[in-house]
Amino acid sequence: MRKLNAGDAGFDAAFRAALDDKRETSADVDAVVAQIIADVRARGDAALVDATNKFDRVTLTAADLRVSSDEIDDAVKQVPVAQRDALAFAADRIRAFHEKQRPSDIDDVDAAGVRLGQRWTAVAAAGLYVPGGTAAYPSSVLMNALPAKVARVPRLVMVVPMPDGVANSLVLAAARLAGVDEIYRVGGAQAVAALAYGTATIAPVDKIVGPGNAYVAAAKRRVFGQVGIDSIAGPSEILVVADRDNDPAWIAADLLSQAEHDEAAQAILITDDAAFATAVEREVEAQLAALPRRATAEASWRAHGLVILVADVRDSIALIDAIAPEHLELAVADPDALAARVRNAGAIFLGRYAPEAVGDYVAGPNHVLPTARTARFSSGLGVLDFLKRTTFVGCDDAALRAIGPAAITLAEAEGLQAHARSIAIRLAK
Amino acid sequence: MRKLNAGDAGFDAAFRAALDDKRETSADVDAVVAQIIADVRARGDAALVDATNKFDRVTLTAADLRVSSDEIDDAVKQVPVAQRDALAFAADRIRAFHEKQRPSDIDDVDAAGVRLGQRWTAVAAAGLYVPGGTAAYPSSVLMNALPAKVARVPRLVMVVPMPDGVANSLVLAAARLAGVDEIYRVGGAQAVAALAYGTATIAPVDKIVGPGNAYVAAAKRRVFGQVGIDSIAGPSEILVVADRDNDPAWIAADLLSQAEHDEAAQAILITDDAAFATAVEREVEAQLAALPRRATAEASWRAHGLVILVADVRDSIALIDAIAPEHLELAVADPDALAARVRNAGAIFLGRYAPEAVGDYVAGPNHVLPTARTARFSSGLGVLDFLKRTTFVGCDDAALRAIGPAAITLAEAEGLQAHARSIAIRLAK
Repeated sequence: MRKLNAGDAGFDAAFRAALDDKRETSADVDAVVAQIIADVRARGDAALVDATNKFDRVTLTAADLRVSSDEIDDAVKQVPVAQRDALAFAADRIRAFHEKQRPSDIDDVDAAGVRLGQRWTAVAAAGLYVPGGTAAYPSSVLMNALPAKVARVPRLVMVVPMPDGVANSLVLAAARLAGVDEIYRVGGAQAVAALAYGTATIAPVDKIVGPGNAYVAAAKRRVFGQVGIDSIAGPSEILVVADRDNDPAWIAADLLSQAEHDEAAQAILITDDAAFATAVEREVEAQLAALPRRATAEASWRAHGLVILVADVRDSIALIDAIAPEHLELAVADPDALAARVRNAGAIFLGRYAPEAVGDYVAGPNHVLPTARTARFSSGLGVLDFLKRTTFVGCDDAALRAIGPAAITLAEAEGLQAHARSIAIRLAK
Repeated sequence: MRKLNAGDAGFDAAFRAALDDKRETSADVDAVVAQIIADVRARGDAALVDATNKFDRVTLTAADLRVSSDEIDDAVKQVPVAQRDALAFAADRIRAFHEKQRPSDIDDVDAAGVRLGQRWTAVAAAGLYVPGGTAAYPSSVLMNALPAKVARVPRLVMVVPMPDGVANSLVLAAARLAGVDEIYRVGGAQAVAALAYGTATIAPVDKIVGPGNAYVAAAKRRVFGQVGIDSIAGPSEILVVADRDNDPAWIAADLLSQAEHDEAAQAILITDDAAFATAVEREVEAQLAALPRRATAEASWRAHGLVILVADVRDSIALIDAIAPEHLELAVADPDALAARVRNAGAIFLGRYAPEAVGDYVAGPNHVLPTARTARFSSGLGVLDFLKRTTFVGCDDAALRAIGPAAITLAEAEGLQAHARSIAIRLAK
């Protein structure tokens, strides 16, 4: 954990260095991934089955790849009722919020008589990658699948590896609840390749979303262009801006809620009170001792934790915008006043009773958010990620006469005579 | 030019092969680009000046890089009045259409008492790459800059190489008209690196848009993550769906308006009348003879031109969606009925009096559109490309009590106890 004081000489340089802190370890997996993708493109199901059997230690045939409806029924039955209810509660809230994100179409005729508009259509098919093993989160299934369903994607395909043949019941239950249309027990670069290029068993999709390990991330980068992809998520981050009127234990709990994700996660506190900062640090140490994921959270806090002292929390806007945090908690007296001045943040949690973790599960907005300072230019996952916009222009003879001459002038100025002629030939009638 | 009949045996395979037709030549420039970017990161202005002087055959110092207001004034004066008027006419129409793209914010309190919303903010700074030389199109300056201004990007920077020191007056006039804030006479990978990482002269931006050659495209791919980028544009395409009731000369002119862009451009005609198809082909040959850019248009048409005969134009939806054209002209009796069923297209031009070229200049919607079948999952440039969404969640004590318990259940099911505790510690109060 590092501690900086915004009033110190040398703060700017130290803060810049903290921002440039490289938290991701990028394994050199690209050559392996290229080979796997080429194999799936060339041999289809046979390659997909071979890779799956090898990496997941199973003995499947192509006929086994799809998870049957009966298997999903069985999985749903294994989920305790309280968990099933909580999933349904979360799904309803996530769906309700994302319904509000549906954009409107435009269809107007302007003063020149030109009809102009745009309309949104869903991608025809989307693929959702869900990690297997410890990072298999049913909440992420909901957060990735529900925006696609709200966007009315006709075909939503999920791939999830099942190492040693073990399925995660809660993940399958979440997929059922979200309305996923097809589920395949495949993962890694081979699953991404199958979604992008298709095999006999898995028809290709147009867009692939969802988190994965370094192999999955490399595969998504490689198939981009053939299909659309979402952003490549980095380690999680939280920035808590807290004044002295908070319970240090609450703020410490919030910092640790992100630190427990990953040793590369980063938790940052900005406060205007040195004694409060010290109290939070003490609480972090105390709470670490009781955490099941102590090793992860402690490693994150020791290596990447950051406490920044400022003269006044209201002066922290420039720091917030430079950090461009994935998650921003404003545990201050007037969070709205501060939030209104923030330009760069994935999601903002307002007030002392809005811990970030409610946003991970049940608040409603998406928990797939921009990391690694990319909130400067990108947004969290949402309905728009599964839609694309088609603009349209309609002219009759009179409308073309109104706007065509200016187009001819510009086309000729650019030396594009065929452009000009395609208009002039109609005006000459 | 190839000709296919949708009724023939073997059509599907021939159509698939035509879709897979690789039109782009990808020069192996990545190593050179990596070196240039590393140099600009390490040496800043000195590297930028060295590369500019070398590639553009000039002798500049860092102090010369920025184009002065006086130079822009002089450039504006050199533009003929008719062209200036046409630019202003285009800018007004493009601005008016893009104003309609501004999305609304959301700020609601739901039944559980949870405040949920999202708000859009502009990127703090955007960079616009404008090619020098023959591909310097003032219309593209308007199409890239105006959406950024409508999005209220506070700082809009343009880079445009000036080989041998020669400026394009119309490009500078378009930049002035669009409200570009800073212009630098640099190009290539060195300009992209300067925009992404900053130098003493050019402060860094958050997003880079605009077309460029293979070096620029490779540089944009490399700096992605450090900054946002728009899509990498491929060669232009047009798909014209025309019934027999069209003038073959008009349709031939439309096909050639895209073919003249680039030898790798593709023009496709779908029609239901073999005699009409033949008449269009004859017209293409006749008009080619009179075109200033004949060599380019002819090469495109010979290598990539495609005519597809169908039994009924109303049955062409599956073909259109598979082609997912950048530009789609529907020169048919009832274009709306056909357009309503199309899922994948960048822009649609409705009816016999809407040649695609009006969309390139003056209609209003953007002319930067998805190519190479990416309209299956992506959209043309627009105001949203310069905005990002921040979601927010506000809870008071009661609201957290309403939604917190379900979040605790899910966090515990996922094994994330610190997440659960950050909520439980508040509920325990």
